[in-house]
Amino acid sequence: MPHINLPKEFPGIRSLFMFRPETAAPLNHLVQTLLHNPHPSLSAGERELIATYVSGLNTCKYCCSIHGAIAQHQLGNNAQIVKQVLDNPDTAPISSKLKALLKIAAKVQSGGKNVIASDIDLARNEGATDIEIHDTVLIAAAFCMYNRYVDGLATWQPDDAALYDKMGEQRAREGYLTAPFKVTEVTDTINS
Amino acid sequence: MPHINLPKEFPGIRSLFMFRPETAAPLNHLVQTLLHNPHPSLSAGERELIATYVSGLNTCKYCCSIHGAIAQHQLGNNAQIVKQVLDNPDTAPISSKLKALLKIAAKVQSGGKNVIASDIDLARNEGATDIEIHDTVLIAAAFCMYNRYVDGLATWQPDDAALYDKMGEQRAREGYLTAPFKVTEVTDTINS
Repeated sequence: MPHINLPKEFPGIRSLFMFRPETAAPLNHLVQTLLHNPHPSLSAGERELIATYVSGLNTCKYCCSIHGAIAQHQLGNNAQIVKQVLDNPDTAPISSKLKALLKIAAKVQSGGKNVIASDIDLARNEGATDIEIHDTVLIAAAFCMYNRYVDGLATWQPDDAALYDKMGEQRAREGYLTAPFKVTEVTDTINS
Repeated sequence: MPHINLPKEFPGIRSLFMFRPETAAPLNHLVQTLLHNPHPSLSAGERELIATYVSGLNTCKYCCSIHGAIAQHQLGNNAQIVKQVLDNPDTAPISSKLKALLKIAAKVQSGGKNVIASDIDLARNEGATDIEIHDTVLIAAAFCMYNRYVDGLATWQPDDAALYDKMGEQRAREGYLTAPFKVTEVTDTINS
């Protein structure tokens, strides 16, 4: 049960966005900019994988499930790649550059000072640019916020994989700034 | 030395805002909403103390110093209260409600799931509202982001206390949305 009185029709961070629209606006703007808007060189799918991986390290079920679903839809409905990144990025079928960026993301998750020069050198040797390193650090840091926000207020985090798939398909297509559908509606759609 | 090529005239997060204005906009909007805009019941000084305390737990020198300076200016130039909160909130001259909220903030810093019902009950017994609990969790979570962002890219974090005082006075007065002054200008002012 959530620690505060939240609307019951929306799971995870969406219930918090409904509760406090003043903070929802910049939080949605940030995730839209980091993960969905056009990027000089990282695809939306690659950026969603970084968000999913960090959310997995923070064991945040809602964020890991929804961003995993969005990543899957951004990557041509490839669920296997998401699972492999969560299991072990080193053996996942992703670029060496993305592997190096995920190492930086994991360091950020454990604490900003843990990122050291050799982590950056490894990424640069694989072709990473300043913007890519910057955005990887900020995506990882931002999900240390979103994950703590969602878990720290004990939001409702459904178990239904079909629900995350449905929500993830919407976000992959529309981005983060459109209204969420109520979960009762989603459940009806899935069951109909 | 920073991990990426940042403008040298601005310390900490301000150098990152100059590097990437696209993400600076929502990050500034978020901190303005959480810490500076009018709040139903928590003063700007109280909210700055939460941000300062979490930044201290994350050992982020830049964020702890600047938000400590802003808190000081928001609290009638009271440096002692900031120091006491950083040393031990339980013996600091703050309300019992703020002490309970700082306990929740510390739990969030160590991981969202560490916030348990008894932490919330303690705050409620001291009069905390849903909005206050929500905002405390989000401020703590947000500074787990800002701190990781500032440290994860190894930004320049000055040692000069007078510089933080000068920057803190500006932010307490103007909020977060105005342009920063260059540090060379600040140093000139302090030395003149």
